[in-house]
Amino acid sequence: MNLYRSHTAGELRKSHVGESVRLSGWVHRKRDHGGLLFIDLRDNYGLTQLVFDPDHAAAFAMAEKVRAEYVIKVEGKVVARSDETVNPGLATGEIEVQVTSLEVLSEALELPLPIFGEPDYPEDIRLTYRFLDLRRETLHKNILLRSKIIASARRRMTEAGFNEFQTPILTASSPEGARDFLVPSRIHPGKFYALPQAPQQFKQLIMVAGFDRYFQIAPCFRDEDGRADRSPGEFYQLDVEMSFVSQDDVFAAIEPILHGLFEEFADGKVVTPYPFPRIPYATSMRKYGSDKPDLRNPIEMSDATHIFRGSGFKVFAGMIEKDLKVEVWAIPAPGGGNRAFCDRMNGWAQGEGQPGLGYIFYRSENGTLEGAGPLAKNIGPERTEQLRVDLGLKEGDAVFFVAGLPKNFTAFAGAARTRIGKELNLIEEGIFKFCWIVDFPMFEWNEDEKRVDFSHNPFSMPQGGLEALENQDPLTINAYQYDIVCNGVELSSGAIRNHKPEIMYKAFAIAGYEKETVETKFGGMLNAFKYGAPPHGGLAPGIDRMVMLLAGVENLREVTMFPMNQQAQDLLMQAPSEVTPKQLKELSIRVVPPLEKKG
Amino acid sequence: MNLYRSHTAGELRKSHVGESVRLSGWVHRKRDHGGLLFIDLRDNYGLTQLVFDPDHAAAFAMAEKVRAEYVIKVEGKVVARSDETVNPGLATGEIEVQVTSLEVLSEALELPLPIFGEPDYPEDIRLTYRFLDLRRETLHKNILLRSKIIASARRRMTEAGFNEFQTPILTASSPEGARDFLVPSRIHPGKFYALPQAPQQFKQLIMVAGFDRYFQIAPCFRDEDGRADRSPGEFYQLDVEMSFVSQDDVFAAIEPILHGLFEEFADGKVVTPYPFPRIPYATSMRKYGSDKPDLRNPIEMSDATHIFRGSGFKVFAGMIEKDLKVEVWAIPAPGGGNRAFCDRMNGWAQGEGQPGLGYIFYRSENGTLEGAGPLAKNIGPERTEQLRVDLGLKEGDAVFFVAGLPKNFTAFAGAARTRIGKELNLIEEGIFKFCWIVDFPMFEWNEDEKRVDFSHNPFSMPQGGLEALENQDPLTINAYQYDIVCNGVELSSGAIRNHKPEIMYKAFAIAGYEKETVETKFGGMLNAFKYGAPPHGGLAPGIDRMVMLLAGVENLREVTMFPMNQQAQDLLMQAPSEVTPKQLKELSIRVVPPLEKKG
Repeated sequence: MNLYRSHTAGELRKSHVGESVRLSGWVHRKRDHGGLLFIDLRDNYGLTQLVFDPDHAAAFAMAEKVRAEYVIKVEGKVVARSDETVNPGLATGEIEVQVTSLEVLSEALELPLPIFGEPDYPEDIRLTYRFLDLRRETLHKNILLRSKIIASARRRMTEAGFNEFQTPILTASSPEGARDFLVPSRIHPGKFYALPQAPQQFKQLIMVAGFDRYFQIAPCFRDEDGRADRSPGEFYQLDVEMSFVSQDDVFAAIEPILHGLFEEFADGKVVTPYPFPRIPYATSMRKYGSDKPDLRNPIEMSDATHIFRGSGFKVFAGMIEKDLKVEVWAIPAPGGGNRAFCDRMNGWAQGEGQPGLGYIFYRSENGTLEGAGPLAKNIGPERTEQLRVDLGLKEGDAVFFVAGLPKNFTAFAGAARTRIGKELNLIEEGIFKFCWIVDFPMFEWNEDEKRVDFSHNPFSMPQGGLEALENQDPLTINAYQYDIVCNGVELSSGAIRNHKPEIMYKAFAIAGYEKETVETKFGGMLNAFKYGAPPHGGLAPGIDRMVMLLAGVENLREVTMFPMNQQAQDLLMQAPSEVTPKQLKELSIRVVPPLEKKG
Repeated sequence: MNLYRSHTAGELRKSHVGESVRLSGWVHRKRDHGGLLFIDLRDNYGLTQLVFDPDHAAAFAMAEKVRAEYVIKVEGKVVARSDETVNPGLATGEIEVQVTSLEVLSEALELPLPIFGEPDYPEDIRLTYRFLDLRRETLHKNILLRSKIIASARRRMTEAGFNEFQTPILTASSPEGARDFLVPSRIHPGKFYALPQAPQQFKQLIMVAGFDRYFQIAPCFRDEDGRADRSPGEFYQLDVEMSFVSQDDVFAAIEPILHGLFEEFADGKVVTPYPFPRIPYATSMRKYGSDKPDLRNPIEMSDATHIFRGSGFKVFAGMIEKDLKVEVWAIPAPGGGNRAFCDRMNGWAQGEGQPGLGYIFYRSENGTLEGAGPLAKNIGPERTEQLRVDLGLKEGDAVFFVAGLPKNFTAFAGAARTRIGKELNLIEEGIFKFCWIVDFPMFEWNEDEKRVDFSHNPFSMPQGGLEALENQDPLTINAYQYDIVCNGVELSSGAIRNHKPEIMYKAFAIAGYEKETVETKFGGMLNAFKYGAPPHGGLAPGIDRMVMLLAGVENLREVTMFPMNQQAQDLLMQAPSEVTPKQLKELSIRVVPPLEKKG
């Protein structure tokens, strides 16, 4: 028999009654019930109730001495609990162990934070004593969940014919993107490695090297300030790349994996069946005011410019007349048809720095359905009714309006849509709603510099290829670039890559780059593409974001074993820390304290 | 149908004959056979022979133009090869594809190194054009093998109830061990993160945090100069830790995993059945002259001091008489019983800086078995025969001798054993021989400083615990520390950890450390152990070493996707490289070029 245990603390059931067992674990809770001592013994797998009676004097005396979080080993007999003491909330709740001997394996000092009951506790104490904080049931469960999600993702990728390859962590500083973490080279004074922001170049080189379906649970590093949903420092992504694929092939490969993964851990929630909806970027911006729409919110915005053109609401009508590009968008608010709600939304909009949020709401007056509110009066009953019919509204509904140049108000309109959905409890519960956002524009107009610029990723393949670049207005060209979005969270961007040097030169030329500049800045990839590159594409869903969605938490620290704090410090390991002069000398660097800022 | 292919280039068989197919891949080789053109099309999965005939003029004309490593897409019909052209060495060797159309997906410049045929090529070219080098069949196969080995290891660990957890890569510089890579902190000027040399502290903290069976395919970083079997920079280990276990529990958990993993990829080689032999450190040193014995070599050394004590061979007899600690070890050499071999070994020993290697060999003279060589003459026939019987030698065998203080000659004796085994072709082929080396001494005598020192890992649990430390001669105490060895390669050290602060203080006191020093240097772990730590232990077999063993290669670069060269440079990505003054300023560091060494 194992020296420490015959069973885990989550294992014993009624069928074990009568067996002699040995258990080891932590003292979770101790209670004194009139002569009997009860200890809840905890390990990785669960809790088991131990009973000590004075007949077993030595064990009883030891049990009296132990405190919370002592590690103990006990031997005893499994007994059935009486009906009234059965705990149906506990997997081992039908039994308890009558202890005949107890050995202390490790003592515990007075705890700096309690484990049992999980009361709120200051963040810095929790991070300094992370090894105690991790013993809390919810955090323990989340960390195990994270591990199981990643293991399942790996298994699914492997079963789908993907091979995992590790790419270098000590690599070169990249000319684009976020801020790199640098690592001074000892052997090459004055030179630095950088930690990868993502293995983007490596995964493309793996395709050029003739491998086919690559993935990696890849550590990525960005020296950016932390946020609740982004670690300061390192994070993980499910990095994926495939050769000889179109955009649809990438979607078809990934959808069953994401769907299966979410369904496995959704805890009964529904997951969008695949194929997931594909929403063009332009449509998403117009319908949802966002390129990462939360489709659990049923509200879809629509164009109501025609209602207000030449209408009695002179503010909108005037704007429309003056500028052909001005539009009025309608944001329906099913069930929001009362003045109190509409005024509250209007107040919210003003708080957001907007002039206000015009509205109409529909009510029944004396058996007649009518539109109410100042705008309804201004545009009159005919247009008000036309609007109602266009939007499919009914009694008790409202509609809000934003007007101007769409590029200026889209983000606000999206925020209003979200706000309305939440306020009216329209957000569907118990579901993970996926969609692809597709057809991102390749280029955009840089108004400040009066020139065409890349919209997103300069390395994506433009739709239409070289021919489009040569013959089409650049601002009308879309890219084979896409996002995968779940419940309003962007899990990943992705793209079919531009694998042809001649198309790359042309795309960069449109954005104003000389051939020489392209070769200097992106020579590595470009050079590789000159020796036979396959068409390829991929994406890289964020692991942390997926785990947070599935665990239902909003803070990364609830799903990360050893997170840093927002100041990028590891309070447990005391990182970062000072190093010895010898270490610095070996690296040929010196610390130069920044000048004090004058107050 | 997929835009690029209906099948991979490794997929078509006789059963596909008659089908219209679409394939994409690289032009591996092109041959002109009297009016017909043949192209071997290569992708990740294999090779397919394409045939172009002039009847399909457009395709034929394109095929004439393409060169090696162009990426092409073809359509055509699968036809059976004639009996005499079937290639049994190729999975697709029974068919070929008669091409009706060809499209170039990507062109290739003149190649800086050839892919087909894999001739030797300079290392720096191969690393600079790694994306081409990786297309070579053997390297491609090795990299896929590595990926499959790691995936299998993960699957096996998961199935055995282990959870994989990621530990931080940005962490604190450690006071012990090899040289750290440092990462300057932007937010905390003058402070540095370090990349982990191994997640040793984290995995122990994970156990203290109440998790149970941990593993991780863990990236590790040491700023040490490279060797063929060790990357300069980063490497991976299968990091494992378990709670509530004795040494035997760790062995029992790991043996089926390593055995299964090796058997899966051994390509028909035999793998030691488990339980693997457990060899005490002292025994291993005496029998094999090494703590990482290659058990494929059948030679076992033994003590022959008694043969030489008071014998006519005055050199050994005198040494033995003068110093009680002097020993003579015998190294049997089955089949080495001829003067030419014995003299060659003697010459080799002198080349190694030894005075020579005494020997006796056994031959038949006139029907009588006799020992020959100068030592045999000196010690006389009785002792010579006694020796033969003791060692079980027969006609045609030899035996070599080393004499002196074992600690001075053990390493050489081990090298001689290896040399003899190789010279005489005694090394068993086609087998992976595993063993555990156990019972490493906890302490050793530091002759220079005249004090007791830790032998290996100060954090291992001493056998006998606190009681042994308090009552036993420290130099006789063993630790629950072990190595796992395969074919003479140390895959990993491991240990049952010392989880009790009081035992740790005592062990360090024996090695001359004050309590305060221990607390300053190792405060993090020690502090955690004061809040209830479970007994725990583990190990961390090197992934790269296992893959090298299974792939049968001697150089890490043959099993690593993007290795650095021996000067710790990535020639492909140009790392390390210079960075901008802005980057250095943000990090509050300055480069201080080292002083030129005067020549």
